[in-house]
Amino acid sequence: MSETFAGFGESSGAGWRPCIVVVDFIVGFTDPATQLGADFTAEVEATRELLDIARAKGVPVVFTTVAYEPHFRDGGHFVVKVPALKLLVQGSTWTEVDERLARLPSEPLVEKKYASSFFGTPLASMLTSFGVDTVIVTGCTTSGCVRATALDALQHGYRVVVPRECVGDRSQAAHEANLYDIQTKYGDVVSFPEVRDYLSKLN
Amino acid sequence: MSETFAGFGESSGAGWRPCIVVVDFIVGFTDPATQLGADFTAEVEATRELLDIARAKGVPVVFTTVAYEPHFRDGGHFVVKVPALKLLVQGSTWTEVDERLARLPSEPLVEKKYASSFFGTPLASMLTSFGVDTVIVTGCTTSGCVRATALDALQHGYRVVVPRECVGDRSQAAHEANLYDIQTKYGDVVSFPEVRDYLSKLN
Amino acid sequence: MSETFAGFGESSGAGWRPCIVVVDFIVGFTDPATQLGADFTAEVEATRELLDIARAKGVPVVFTTVAYEPHFRDGGHFVVKVPALKLLVQGSTWTEVDERLARLPSEPLVEKKYASSFFGTPLASMLTSFGVDTVIVTGCTTSGCVRATALDALQHGYRVVVPRECVGDRSQAAHEANLYDIQTKYGDVVSFPEVRDYLSKLN
Amino acid sequence: MSETFAGFGESSGAGWRPCIVVVDFIVGFTDPATQLGADFTAEVEATRELLDIARAKGVPVVFTTVAYEPHFRDGGHFVVKVPALKLLVQGSTWTEVDERLARLPSEPLVEKKYASSFFGTPLASMLTSFGVDTVIVTGCTTSGCVRATALDALQHGYRVVVPRECVGDRSQAAHEANLYDIQTKYGDVVSFPEVRDYLSKLN
Repeated sequence: MSETFAGFGESSGAGWRPCIVVVDFIVGFTDPATQLGADFTAEVEATRELLDIARAKGVPVVFTTVAYEPHFRDGGHFVVKVPALKLLVQGSTWTEVDERLARLPSEPLVEKKYASSFFGTPLASMLTSFGVDTVIVTGCTTSGCVRATALDALQHGYRVVVPRECVGDRSQAAHEANLYDIQTKYGDVVSFPEVRDYLSKLN
Repeated sequence: MSETFAGFGESSGAGWRPCIVVVDFIVGFTDPATQLGADFTAEVEATRELLDIARAKGVPVVFTTVAYEPHFRDGGHFVVKVPALKLLVQGSTWTEVDERLARLPSEPLVEKKYASSFFGTPLASMLTSFGVDTVIVTGCTTSGCVRATALDALQHGYRVVVPRECVGDRSQAAHEANLYDIQTKYGDVVSFPEVRDYLSKLN
Repeated sequence: MSETFAGFGESSGAGWRPCIVVVDFIVGFTDPATQLGADFTAEVEATRELLDIARAKGVPVVFTTVAYEPHFRDGGHFVVKVPALKLLVQGSTWTEVDERLARLPSEPLVEKKYASSFFGTPLASMLTSFGVDTVIVTGCTTSGCVRATALDALQHGYRVVVPRECVGDRSQAAHEANLYDIQTKYGDVVSFPEVRDYLSKLN
Repeated sequence: MSETFAGFGESSGAGWRPCIVVVDFIVGFTDPATQLGADFTAEVEATRELLDIARAKGVPVVFTTVAYEPHFRDGGHFVVKVPALKLLVQGSTWTEVDERLARLPSEPLVEKKYASSFFGTPLASMLTSFGVDTVIVTGCTTSGCVRATALDALQHGYRVVVPRECVGDRSQAAHEANLYDIQTKYGDVVSFPEVRDYLSKLN
């Protein structure tokens, strides 16, 4: 997956008013015992380190969760295609943000039904009212909700940054393939230290 | 890329009122001489065969193109990340549907700026007013606009079907990786004969 | 407000697979003691009568509520323009559907932040997965969330029907002015008995 | 239409990075001889005066038009409800921006199918990539596309400003009723001189 094509994969860079979107680091995904989950300890800890800097700097942080009404009529054909999602009933522990991220009461939690954090949610409106120009995507899974969120962030007009060590997947092959696609077409896939330094230098 | 995970990759099936969405089979992509393009002869021909059945059956067909105003201010950071896109100026031959598909005057052509055929376009409204329940995605590229369209079709509430022989990519590895992701999470990746038979049996 | 213009205000009619969307008949609006509310007893009762028929016929019913996180950062400039909205905190009684409508556990409840029931919510995806072709809008207020929902229903590709007796407003003048605009441009404003008969005759 | 309600109609103000959206000041609407149109000479001239300041200041300007493919299948039920819209075929003079506004080649033109300038268009993505925080809405008609655009601008997270003298309607009663609703719920309806002074003082 190392082909390069001329005219693809340039850097779109980062702006001055970033937001960190933490995608689906909820118990149903970070508990390796579930069908949905895997061991994302390293990715959660790297994300936490970014969040601590962001909080000190006043950079906005938004979390997402996936949660369905008990009848699942709000899940369309997604819950048919991926029945493992039926674990995620509104109000259940599975839909709560992983406590290692220490979500603050002032940090919005967006409930979604599908892969993209923007789709059918108020996320885009929030980012606009916050004056954001860059979306830093962390969370899981790289091949699912992370990629869908990175794609939609670009489509909504944002610069997109994905710190490689802050996103994870059940499958290492899918993880790599999707980072390749994101870097080629949708946003800049960069190292954790690079994002840490970028955030640290913001005024 | 052959891992299987319990609770993923079930069939979401097809309904009774499909639409074929032909994604970006425009000259800029189907001419192998461009930076964007590749030789999609087989995929175009397979798609044409489906279109002929659809037209005979009254199944709606919608085409998409990518086209920018000459200033490219409608391309956001996408044209920065993928400067090859700057070939696609409104009114240029590159943005025209490949003539081998023989687009009819009654078949809508949706102009988009980003990867998903739904994003920032009237496609979803059209499909609703047509009474569609299933989106059959053909076109290019598998790792770009096809996958983004399949994802958004699911997110909009449709059943999604991708006939494998009708979608193509510059990179065979990216093609396979993205079909795997679509089949695992967003829609049914099936063979061309299966879709041909499905369409042929519609009343 | 009785001008007629040629080429406006034709009937767009109703289809065969309607859905009733009950907009914001929540305690914060139906309790006349609040800043947001008014006495909508007659409108709630007329809506309930339609719901009873819909339930017997298997016509889908969706409710909406407005609810904000306690920090109101999800309310953008709407809660600045209309500070009365700050009553509607997630989990409070004010955000619950009026019990006279006897919402069933199988009837989805969509949480929104703005006026349109479609904006930033999964409503459109739900209606598509239900196979709906017609949206019957009831609720409050005519000049706010009802009109915004009727507009967006049209924009999403649906036929729109507003039963006059099932929608209400704080201001009678605003009620009439907005029904006029809806009837002129977005959907058919008809009488309660007409909608009742339409639903009763569905198979 | 002069009722005031406590908790409504506060000022949401203006920010520091405005954009002027000129809604449907196209020949089909500004030619009084059409079914769609009226005499908007004063509103066009007032808008032109704002545009001249905006251009000198580097404030972005976006125009919208309504245009349909000749089959009108992209018009859904809107062209059924308002058959007068069928004048607006892609490529016809009716869909061109009124030349008194002297649109520059660098100023985007957004093609829409419905009332809101945001709906099914790339407008929101453009505004985000421009870094806009405030939408100044001018154009026609107040009761149709202007109000729908003001509503959607708020819903997308923007501050909304409507200069009263820069928006017009076929019906004076509908004009007033809709300005009342906008001022009460969605944005600040202010005088032309106030917006002129605001733009003039921007750095």
